[in-house]
Amino acid sequence: MKINANRLQSHFEAMSLIGKIGVTGTCRPAHTALEKEGFELAAYWMQKAGMTTHIDNFGNLIGRLEGKNPDLPILMMGSHLDSQPYGGRFDGVAGVLCAIEVITTLSENGIKPERAIEVISFADEEGWRFNKGLFGSRGILGKLDEGELERTDKDGITRGQALKDFGCDILKFKESEYKLGSIFCFLELHIEQGPVLDIANKPIGVVSGISGPLWWTVKLKGMAGHTGSVPMPIRKDALVGAAEIIVAVNEIATQVPGAPTVGTVGTINVFPASRNIIPEEVTFTVDLRDIDLERRNRYEKQLRDRIDKITKKHHLSYEISEDTKSDPRYCADWIKEIIHEECVSLKLDAPELMSGPFHDALALSYACDYGMIFVRCKDGVSHNPLEYSSYEDLALGANVMLGTVVKILKQK
Amino acid sequence: MKINANRLQSHFEAMSLIGKIGVTGTCRPAHTALEKEGFELAAYWMQKAGMTTHIDNFGNLIGRLEGKNPDLPILMMGSHLDSQPYGGRFDGVAGVLCAIEVITTLSENGIKPERAIEVISFADEEGWRFNKGLFGSRGILGKLDEGELERTDKDGITRGQALKDFGCDILKFKESEYKLGSIFCFLELHIEQGPVLDIANKPIGVVSGISGPLWWTVKLKGMAGHTGSVPMPIRKDALVGAAEIIVAVNEIATQVPGAPTVGTVGTINVFPASRNIIPEEVTFTVDLRDIDLERRNRYEKQLRDRIDKITKKHHLSYEISEDTKSDPRYCADWIKEIIHEECVSLKLDAPELMSGPFHDALALSYACDYGMIFVRCKDGVSHNPLEYSSYEDLALGANVMLGTVVKILKQK
Repeated sequence: MKINANRLQSHFEAMSLIGKIGVTGTCRPAHTALEKEGFELAAYWMQKAGMTTHIDNFGNLIGRLEGKNPDLPILMMGSHLDSQPYGGRFDGVAGVLCAIEVITTLSENGIKPERAIEVISFADEEGWRFNKGLFGSRGILGKLDEGELERTDKDGITRGQALKDFGCDILKFKESEYKLGSIFCFLELHIEQGPVLDIANKPIGVVSGISGPLWWTVKLKGMAGHTGSVPMPIRKDALVGAAEIIVAVNEIATQVPGAPTVGTVGTINVFPASRNIIPEEVTFTVDLRDIDLERRNRYEKQLRDRIDKITKKHHLSYEISEDTKSDPRYCADWIKEIIHEECVSLKLDAPELMSGPFHDALALSYACDYGMIFVRCKDGVSHNPLEYSSYEDLALGANVMLGTVVKILKQK
Repeated sequence: MKINANRLQSHFEAMSLIGKIGVTGTCRPAHTALEKEGFELAAYWMQKAGMTTHIDNFGNLIGRLEGKNPDLPILMMGSHLDSQPYGGRFDGVAGVLCAIEVITTLSENGIKPERAIEVISFADEEGWRFNKGLFGSRGILGKLDEGELERTDKDGITRGQALKDFGCDILKFKESEYKLGSIFCFLELHIEQGPVLDIANKPIGVVSGISGPLWWTVKLKGMAGHTGSVPMPIRKDALVGAAEIIVAVNEIATQVPGAPTVGTVGTINVFPASRNIIPEEVTFTVDLRDIDLERRNRYEKQLRDRIDKITKKHHLSYEISEDTKSDPRYCADWIKEIIHEECVSLKLDAPELMSGPFHDALALSYACDYGMIFVRCKDGVSHNPLEYSSYEDLALGANVMLGTVVKILKQK
């Protein structure tokens, strides 16, 4: 039994037209008409594969292939169809489309599983719109934080409003939550988004775990003034402080050559943003990740010390708000073993590797065992229109997933 | 003969309500309905003072008190009513309202000058909206650069469109230009926007000249990628490069302790601006000023070298576009002498000082002799809602200006 590689490719091609930017890019933000359009197309394919579909109150698209025994904990698969603002065609999409392809193949082959299988496109995995991600996958597990619906995007629209506009009933979240024990396990296929498989020249990798990110929003406050007249020694320039902190993030993350630590400032906003006014307020995000939690904690402390010193030097006040702080989470050994077996049977030499990026599987890891399959991506480029995985590699990944699902369905 | 301090104060208070932000702030951007409202109020006061008024095709408000001999070169006074986005009540406004008060006082005293006097509120002195200032004062002298009408504000509105919406005919700029030799001299009163007078405890200063600014827009280009997976050594992070350049600007401008050099980065924009994506493009402004042109040129070279090295280190490409490059321009000795005499007759010990900020007088300096009167401002704070000059000091400045105008009118 094999998946249909041509059909899978045609699904990628059709999905890439929704929110297309440039020649190979995608901008399909969470909870928008573009994501809805993607959901409608995916739901159509799900239904053709024999699944019932609905959008829940978190804005997740859920397809369900009923099992002979509907009371058994379900096998869940999925990823996301929302994209970065300047993203590619494969990030998230690969996990949703390959899962649909697996179900389509099972149905074509007349396989009716004991336990139900659900395929989910999770809402707002990416997290850039409201500066906090994994919304849908945390939502179904009752793990939203206080104030999440009040977070605003750059146009001032709250998450709550965006969900309402999307058709969700934010007063009925409870109805969309999954009970503890109701998920047997979770499987996610994803492009690697890093260069390990490409450098090793291997199409498929078996994920060992996900490094959790530390996400901060840092706000510095100084004092506005005329750029032509306020003497340098008496300035309180919030942007000079921010610049020194950005340099510090980079230094801290690179202090051990070759270590997998990554540290990034991806956004920065200045107030009042006039070329003629000394910056009074600067807000920026910090993203720090490591597979070694102890090292990440040590670096966090270093960074806090540096921020304290730098702001003192420039007479600035500061606030750090922690948006996300996740521990690294490891895949279940028994699922990894099955994936390895499937790779061997397909004659793939699949290395095991950690994931720097987080995925919906990180949220699911607190509810059930999980496994992840990585597909090689060219030069490790992702979150970029140039992101590329070949359809051959994606078909290989879908076949590994198919075999894995068949074996998992045999588990009691 | 003295100006009416109560009337002058009431004019400041009335003007401060237009575009008011917070308790003491102003946001009255160039070429907008708010600036128009300011113009209408000022035009009303001009007319009460016996002037005719019109708005020209550059968006300048012009009031004219006719002279006995309309063919003589005019005495021009003025400043601007547009404000910074997060500005105060006095910057620019002081020069316009004190000039109107001077004319009102002349008219009340039945003085009909030989040469005509014009009071102008120049369009877009501030320059933050389209990243280039002194628009109206350069406009009347035929000194606009190529492409100025195509510059856009942050909402994508072009200067040309903004002017049309303001009621200007951009095809008839020529009609609004002043012929060479038609301006006898130019006078501008302005708040100091720096701390020199406040520290010296002197209400009034005589300006010796204006340091010209060097204004750049710098654009860095790197490579977007996933913040969780692209290893640090292979990144091309445009924001890390920008941060090092911002630190360099600060270092270069402070290398000689106590020197009047100032260097500032006031705005910065990141693309694609996701906390999850390594910054691919960063654009920021640079503002470098010095009263010593040779030193500023030396520092410009240092900065270009640093930018070259920093971008090489981070594998970035860069472009520097020069928005403005002005030389320092000095006031006419004969006008300074008159201002000094007026200060002495009012028992003011007025120091002479350079202006770090530029003013419309900088543009006028290429067309005629000019003089400037500075009024003390508290703690040197400007381009900030906290900007403050006392009404007593402003009235003193207006009286110095009145006496200066009377003496200038006696010149052949």
